[in-house]
Amino acid sequence: MLKPVTYPSFRSVLAHRQSQGKAARLVGAHDTLGGRLAQEAGFDGVWASSLEISAARCLPDASVLTMTEYLGSAVHTQRGTGIPVVADVDTGYGNNLNVTHMVHEYEAAGITAVCLEDKLYPKMNSFVSAPQTLLDAETFCSKIRVAKQAQRTDDFFVIARTEALIDGLGVPVALDRCHAYVDAGADAVLVHSKDRTNEPILAFLQQWEDRAPVVIVPTTYPDWHVDDAAKAGVSAVIYANHGLRATMHALRDAYRSILDNGTTTDLEGQIASVGDIFAVQQLTAWRGLETA
Amino acid sequence: MLKPVTYPSFRSVLAHRQSQGKAARLVGAHDTLGGRLAQEAGFDGVWASSLEISAARCLPDASVLTMTEYLGSAVHTQRGTGIPVVADVDTGYGNNLNVTHMVHEYEAAGITAVCLEDKLYPKMNSFVSAPQTLLDAETFCSKIRVAKQAQRTDDFFVIARTEALIDGLGVPVALDRCHAYVDAGADAVLVHSKDRTNEPILAFLQQWEDRAPVVIVPTTYPDWHVDDAAKAGVSAVIYANHGLRATMHALRDAYRSILDNGTTTDLEGQIASVGDIFAVQQLTAWRGLETA
Amino acid sequence: MLKPVTYPSFRSVLAHRQSQGKAARLVGAHDTLGGRLAQEAGFDGVWASSLEISAARCLPDASVLTMTEYLGSAVHTQRGTGIPVVADVDTGYGNNLNVTHMVHEYEAAGITAVCLEDKLYPKMNSFVSAPQTLLDAETFCSKIRVAKQAQRTDDFFVIARTEALIDGLGVPVALDRCHAYVDAGADAVLVHSKDRTNEPILAFLQQWEDRAPVVIVPTTYPDWHVDDAAKAGVSAVIYANHGLRATMHALRDAYRSILDNGTTTDLEGQIASVGDIFAVQQLTAWRGLETA
Amino acid sequence: MLKPVTYPSFRSVLAHRQSQGKAARLVGAHDTLGGRLAQEAGFDGVWASSLEISAARCLPDASVLTMTEYLGSAVHTQRGTGIPVVADVDTGYGNNLNVTHMVHEYEAAGITAVCLEDKLYPKMNSFVSAPQTLLDAETFCSKIRVAKQAQRTDDFFVIARTEALIDGLGVPVALDRCHAYVDAGADAVLVHSKDRTNEPILAFLQQWEDRAPVVIVPTTYPDWHVDDAAKAGVSAVIYANHGLRATMHALRDAYRSILDNGTTTDLEGQIASVGDIFAVQQLTAWRGLETA
Repeated sequence: MLKPVTYPSFRSVLAHRQSQGKAARLVGAHDTLGGRLAQEAGFDGVWASSLEISAARCLPDASVLTMTEYLGSAVHTQRGTGIPVVADVDTGYGNNLNVTHMVHEYEAAGITAVCLEDKLYPKMNSFVSAPQTLLDAETFCSKIRVAKQAQRTDDFFVIARTEALIDGLGVPVALDRCHAYVDAGADAVLVHSKDRTNEPILAFLQQWEDRAPVVIVPTTYPDWHVDDAAKAGVSAVIYANHGLRATMHALRDAYRSILDNGTTTDLEGQIASVGDIFAVQQLTAWRGLETA
Repeated sequence: MLKPVTYPSFRSVLAHRQSQGKAARLVGAHDTLGGRLAQEAGFDGVWASSLEISAARCLPDASVLTMTEYLGSAVHTQRGTGIPVVADVDTGYGNNLNVTHMVHEYEAAGITAVCLEDKLYPKMNSFVSAPQTLLDAETFCSKIRVAKQAQRTDDFFVIARTEALIDGLGVPVALDRCHAYVDAGADAVLVHSKDRTNEPILAFLQQWEDRAPVVIVPTTYPDWHVDDAAKAGVSAVIYANHGLRATMHALRDAYRSILDNGTTTDLEGQIASVGDIFAVQQLTAWRGLETA
Repeated sequence: MLKPVTYPSFRSVLAHRQSQGKAARLVGAHDTLGGRLAQEAGFDGVWASSLEISAARCLPDASVLTMTEYLGSAVHTQRGTGIPVVADVDTGYGNNLNVTHMVHEYEAAGITAVCLEDKLYPKMNSFVSAPQTLLDAETFCSKIRVAKQAQRTDDFFVIARTEALIDGLGVPVALDRCHAYVDAGADAVLVHSKDRTNEPILAFLQQWEDRAPVVIVPTTYPDWHVDDAAKAGVSAVIYANHGLRATMHALRDAYRSILDNGTTTDLEGQIASVGDIFAVQQLTAWRGLETA
Repeated sequence: MLKPVTYPSFRSVLAHRQSQGKAARLVGAHDTLGGRLAQEAGFDGVWASSLEISAARCLPDASVLTMTEYLGSAVHTQRGTGIPVVADVDTGYGNNLNVTHMVHEYEAAGITAVCLEDKLYPKMNSFVSAPQTLLDAETFCSKIRVAKQAQRTDDFFVIARTEALIDGLGVPVALDRCHAYVDAGADAVLVHSKDRTNEPILAFLQQWEDRAPVVIVPTTYPDWHVDDAAKAGVSAVIYANHGLRATMHALRDAYRSILDNGTTTDLEGQIASVGDIFAVQQLTAWRGLETA
């Protein structure tokens, strides 16, 4: 017998961590393997990162891949992973019609949470040195409203992400936007920042007064300990791209070793074994079906 | 201007290496990132490994994923990689009709070489401790014939892989099968072995008399230097799964570090940077289009 | 507001029709349009026919398309259709491992019923004048068992289809197989026949004694009225390919008219209007989202 | 032996018809079956219509489906059809980056012509009673330039479609835009109109002076004979949605007949036979492979 992988909703996982006074920890992934190893390590959830997914295709994180491709990656990840996937859906792929279709498709496919951001379609990655134009707040609120109206179950969770700090608009604008987004129905807000310190986020949190859960992505301010962030009012921390970056480093090392040495002898013992692959594939359980 | 990635055929790459008296070196990959980093490192080609592709989905390498999924992965890899992809097509997904359709689809999608093996559908991975039943040689020759008849261009390359050694049938059977496969039209043979030494392969090569190119996968006999293999008569060496194994090791390390430390501070500097991601995405070239 | 399409399970629809003493009526379709028009007409369910799906691709109904493609078509049909889709999954795409993966994927995608047949993979369409080799009964029972063990909810419904009559093995063999299939857990049986009369089916039904629901596909014995079939003990009738055949006829007529006349004037009024297209797309509801 | 379907480029077909003083005739389709029947009827090409493709999914023609889905449909159609497919790519799915990626993907998949329109993303179907906002001409010219720079072979053909008449901007604006589009590199222009007569198109043609091929879509002015259009300077006529409309009408009739009559007896003889399905699947040729 080999039952399908089951998983809790992101809403329930977040509530559980909040009840413990802790922040949920998520890590970026772009395939099932990344998701399952994240679960094995002990993360609370997986961030189906559009940066990771597009980088795995060697294409820019700029709305060049399609919803079909982002959804496919998120669904593959979720189907093999016992912790919830939060899907990075960028701008929702267009206007209110696209957002509605997105919610229908993601929820039907078993995704329990999405994160929608207030940039214009097509988006450009937030860490790029480029001016970012934000969608006006009211139009984005309309997207949130149709997203929430489109969901089928109460469990589906919509995170509204503001790029106000990324765009240099300051904490007051971020606060205004986030209040409007929660008024429009957002279940949580993600306040993105590429500051080298956590100061803008701290300033935001002090004035936010815990109105709704706050999610952060500390790529550029990595020193903030998750427990300190939790104490400051953060509900979830996303380590958005470190798995991809570790993968790139490891592939470069392994490939170089093979070509330099003319054998893989030196690699053996430094990398996972073929048996480790079989284990992550649950091969023994699958082979048990042969004689069922 | 951003031209699509172009790449030589596997046939031409192999011929070039043969003219140099060298073995072509291929490395397994399951996505575009793996392919492009293989090119960057200096490999001659990429092995679109069914073990890697299924492991990335946390599913067994047992014909559980479909041709659509294996082809999708190979095509994504090839589209972003300037060296040829050799697609591991297992048994050809069924009988002569499936093989014909497979060749039509792979060639139309831009894949220049496939490797077809003489196991029964659905296959089980060769490294598994399970009895492997081989397809009778004549039925497999029929598959090779229809594969060669189905191709549109002369460039398309079909590698016939025998599992005779994996199945314990011995070198004479492997030789008989490989001769029959070349008679049926195979462009090269892959002699798979899970012996801990290169002896069975050496025995094969001594009697083969260079009738057609020989490809090997030295996963279990990693110590054989590529140049020695070339001198012994090997035309191509596939390092089939080391990228995946390096990835698994790196992801486990990185994920563990994040959870143990509560920050990613320790990881910074040990993994690729966000700028490295942008580089592999060719972000500067893509951004140049904004003002074209 | 535009809620996703919802639909009952096939199990509940069948039970409802049985409680009325009627046979459920299903019609073949290969896309969402066919499914939605079937719902609009009043059918109880849709048969995601592998013959229709492969014919829409101009490929033989011979396991040449993959599970990914059959599932994609079934899912698209179900997502836009308020009546249940019964997916024709042929042989289950291989062995017990493939069947298990099939159930995981179909159920996760929202399909509530599948029909698994006792031919060998790769299959050939039952109406082709070719000898059909059946899988031995015990191996097929094993497939049914793993299918039932793989499902996540009690609602998922597995129809076991026997090709015993197609293969000329006679009613007693069909009965023996169907009893074994129900013993193995099948929720219903489909007894396929290409006899020009309903006599083999009648003979089956008289000895079956209503042990489990019986499904029929009267392509070659079209004269049997659904109410008469219901009285004889049939629980569901599948009109498997008539939509496709009507489509082929209509396309040929329309295409010929355009080329012969040099205009589409003669077609106007004989075909649906552009407004009819908009209606089936629910365009008004979608446009209402623009100002939400 | 079963070779893959081959097909000429749209560029060559159009040149051939021009050399004969005739207009090429294309018909809309959304799957392989529609394409192959169009070829069988004698059309010169197939229009992979976004209206048809979205209607087959029961979704609005409003950039709700993704490039992946539109491309998938166009590729399936082209792979089974011996005449060229012209892909309706709407706005190119976003900005210059999306257009570049679109050309890379479509050309690599074997599509020889695309038609790009000067509306804003996300688009709304042109026959909808809605105000259409056009992209400014210079930004659209930039899209055409990057499209032409992105192609790999000289054969790839880019049609620039103006919605100036649809948007009520008049013939002079249509002319200005089309001249600019040809200056930017467009291989042909499509002048769309929903006027009930051919007058706006005639006015356009008289002033255009045959600068580049002109394509029309006479959905709302169906009476214009193709030969008269050719004499007036039209190079290609697209009958964009009549196959879909014929299909809808036929499915409704067939479905109604089955439910009303309780049998399919009345349908037999009025629809294609099962043998007709086998013929379009080329079943005999495929079965010949079994004993190759």
